[in-house]
Amino acid sequence: MKMEEIRIGILGGGQLGKMLNYTANQWNLPLALLDQQPEFPAGVNSWKFTTGDFKNYEDVMAFGGHLDILGIEIEHVNLQALYDLEAQGTKVHPRPAVLEIIKDKYLQNQFYRKHKLPTVAFDRYDNAEEIKTAVSNGTLVLPFVQKTRGEGYDGRGVQMVNQPEDLDKLLQGPSIVEGKVKIKKELAVVTARNEAGDIQCYDPVEMVFNDQNMLDFLYAPATIPEKIHDQLMNIAHDTMQKYAISGLMAIEFFWTTDDEILINEVAPRPHNSGHHTLENAVTNQFEQHLRGLLNLPLGDTKLLQPAAMLNILGEPDYTGIPVYHGMEDVLALDNVHIHIYGKPETRPYRKMGHVTVCGTDRIEIEDKIEYIKKTLKVITS
Amino acid sequence: MKMEEIRIGILGGGQLGKMLNYTANQWNLPLALLDQQPEFPAGVNSWKFTTGDFKNYEDVMAFGGHLDILGIEIEHVNLQALYDLEAQGTKVHPRPAVLEIIKDKYLQNQFYRKHKLPTVAFDRYDNAEEIKTAVSNGTLVLPFVQKTRGEGYDGRGVQMVNQPEDLDKLLQGPSIVEGKVKIKKELAVVTARNEAGDIQCYDPVEMVFNDQNMLDFLYAPATIPEKIHDQLMNIAHDTMQKYAISGLMAIEFFWTTDDEILINEVAPRPHNSGHHTLENAVTNQFEQHLRGLLNLPLGDTKLLQPAAMLNILGEPDYTGIPVYHGMEDVLALDNVHIHIYGKPETRPYRKMGHVTVCGTDRIEIEDKIEYIKKTLKVITS
Repeated sequence: MKMEEIRIGILGGGQLGKMLNYTANQWNLPLALLDQQPEFPAGVNSWKFTTGDFKNYEDVMAFGGHLDILGIEIEHVNLQALYDLEAQGTKVHPRPAVLEIIKDKYLQNQFYRKHKLPTVAFDRYDNAEEIKTAVSNGTLVLPFVQKTRGEGYDGRGVQMVNQPEDLDKLLQGPSIVEGKVKIKKELAVVTARNEAGDIQCYDPVEMVFNDQNMLDFLYAPATIPEKIHDQLMNIAHDTMQKYAISGLMAIEFFWTTDDEILINEVAPRPHNSGHHTLENAVTNQFEQHLRGLLNLPLGDTKLLQPAAMLNILGEPDYTGIPVYHGMEDVLALDNVHIHIYGKPETRPYRKMGHVTVCGTDRIEIEDKIEYIKKTLKVITS
Repeated sequence: MKMEEIRIGILGGGQLGKMLNYTANQWNLPLALLDQQPEFPAGVNSWKFTTGDFKNYEDVMAFGGHLDILGIEIEHVNLQALYDLEAQGTKVHPRPAVLEIIKDKYLQNQFYRKHKLPTVAFDRYDNAEEIKTAVSNGTLVLPFVQKTRGEGYDGRGVQMVNQPEDLDKLLQGPSIVEGKVKIKKELAVVTARNEAGDIQCYDPVEMVFNDQNMLDFLYAPATIPEKIHDQLMNIAHDTMQKYAISGLMAIEFFWTTDDEILINEVAPRPHNSGHHTLENAVTNQFEQHLRGLLNLPLGDTKLLQPAAMLNILGEPDYTGIPVYHGMEDVLALDNVHIHIYGKPETRPYRKMGHVTVCGTDRIEIEDKIEYIKKTLKVITS
């Protein structure tokens, strides 16, 4: 393999592309990226940044037609182009057939059912009316969670239906309805696989929620009993084995009050729940993703120290050119690592960066997280 | 401080500039770099790469005139321009007056003598004839080491004079002559300072030599008695305090068979002997350099695990567009981190990259180093 001659590209040039470039730069790998504007995060450190729309058939074909290997950093890409590129001989990771399953919550859950992988009980509906009918029939009982079959992420495309009035807020179009489970913890495992079939999993990560039940930060490794840890690792391994894609797959889980482990959903790419690995793992998730895409031996997933990862979101009342307030104060903290993605515009709750806090004492780590939440703000000038 | 508004630049766009960009990219710091070709290593990940010659007065003035802070990644820059930029109000790190001392081995050694910092005994000579005269007079006795006062690095500008025939190989021009010391180990300490006067030092690094007495690899932390460790740390701290510059300074030492610690020379920038910190320290040397330049609080220098660092040099018989042979085999090793700088041309013994091997067992680390030396080769196609 001559690294410098590998024709490899990624659909997407956001923060995940930027962080993939860290390893590409280190290896001198000529990683090409496709996204709409070179002002997007990955523009600063790309070997080659191609301007185009990864949702547009022609743009993806033109970009991928020159490549031996094509990966993604976002799921919402033109699927038909991926199928056609694959037919032309480009190695597309994840395989389009798997991406099609993952992009549709119904097909995804069906996949788990078929392969006897544990997931939440679910049913599909073609539209909101059908759901209302099912409720009045008594075949569907509240509370439940509705999820659209199309393009939802980061909480979009999800509707909680706890009481009859919530039925007015049902999402339109095809969807699935999942029973509401009582959750002890939400957990995630980042897995990786290469074409040779080797699979490696990072230790589980725990989502920590605040008083208002909003995601506060992620903590790795998750504070969980060994039995639960082992179950998670086994299911994560099996799930990746069944999907059998190359590169990363992050798997989100519910650990229920009945001590069940249920798969919530997956993302076949680098993921928020693996960002801490940049600082605290032998191999970070971005390097691991490239190892998977290139069919290299996977790296060691060992964590060197515990870490918490806090997303830095745009402040609610600000839209425009971002200004980062409080950087200097946060940089004064020991073993705290700031990542500012460099997006050209901040918007309310938009992911503008993240901070990883490493250490050995969880209390001390959480104190630093509290301080950072109060201190580091993304506003406009 | 608004990070995104800081006008900061670096003279040099080689591998050290590229690795400085890792942190600049992570912080979204608009770091500008000046060097001759954007094909040089730092071209791939620079916010702004300015084409120009850092040895040229006009180029440095034009580049630095727009900046609040100017740093370097190489010493051989136009000194007059730095003095003039400093006079105009640009913060130049290191201060030109210190850089002038460091660039001249005679002034550098005089500095240590003046500040009672331990260094090798030395004398200055204006030319090779003076040295020969001193030898025939008996005022200078063999063996000794001759070092030119001008621009020498990586062994260039240094001549060993062990026997009378070596006098024919004397370097021309002004030089100093140092007594030859019996060395137990060669060691280095990377120090950092910010304008506020805070000083932090990384643990000492040890140069390991092979049977032919050529530098083989660096090992951190150095395997040395606690007493020697403490002496090194104290002298390193004092040396940085006397120079009083902002940013990094790597200090190279001799530990003699008489258990003396002597300063050999310093480099006021990121340095080979700090490369391992990218993988095994809480704060890597490149981030630390930027913290020093920006007058931020310095980061924690703690090493998380031992590491060896091996330079990857161009093979002796190859000049031209580089090809990296054996990458895949080396990437198969656990906890081994390859850095390929991406220089457009390889030349015999040119530094083309480095590999860091981390671990807890020194024997295992050295076995991996041996394997990498045999496996990873920079040739041409």
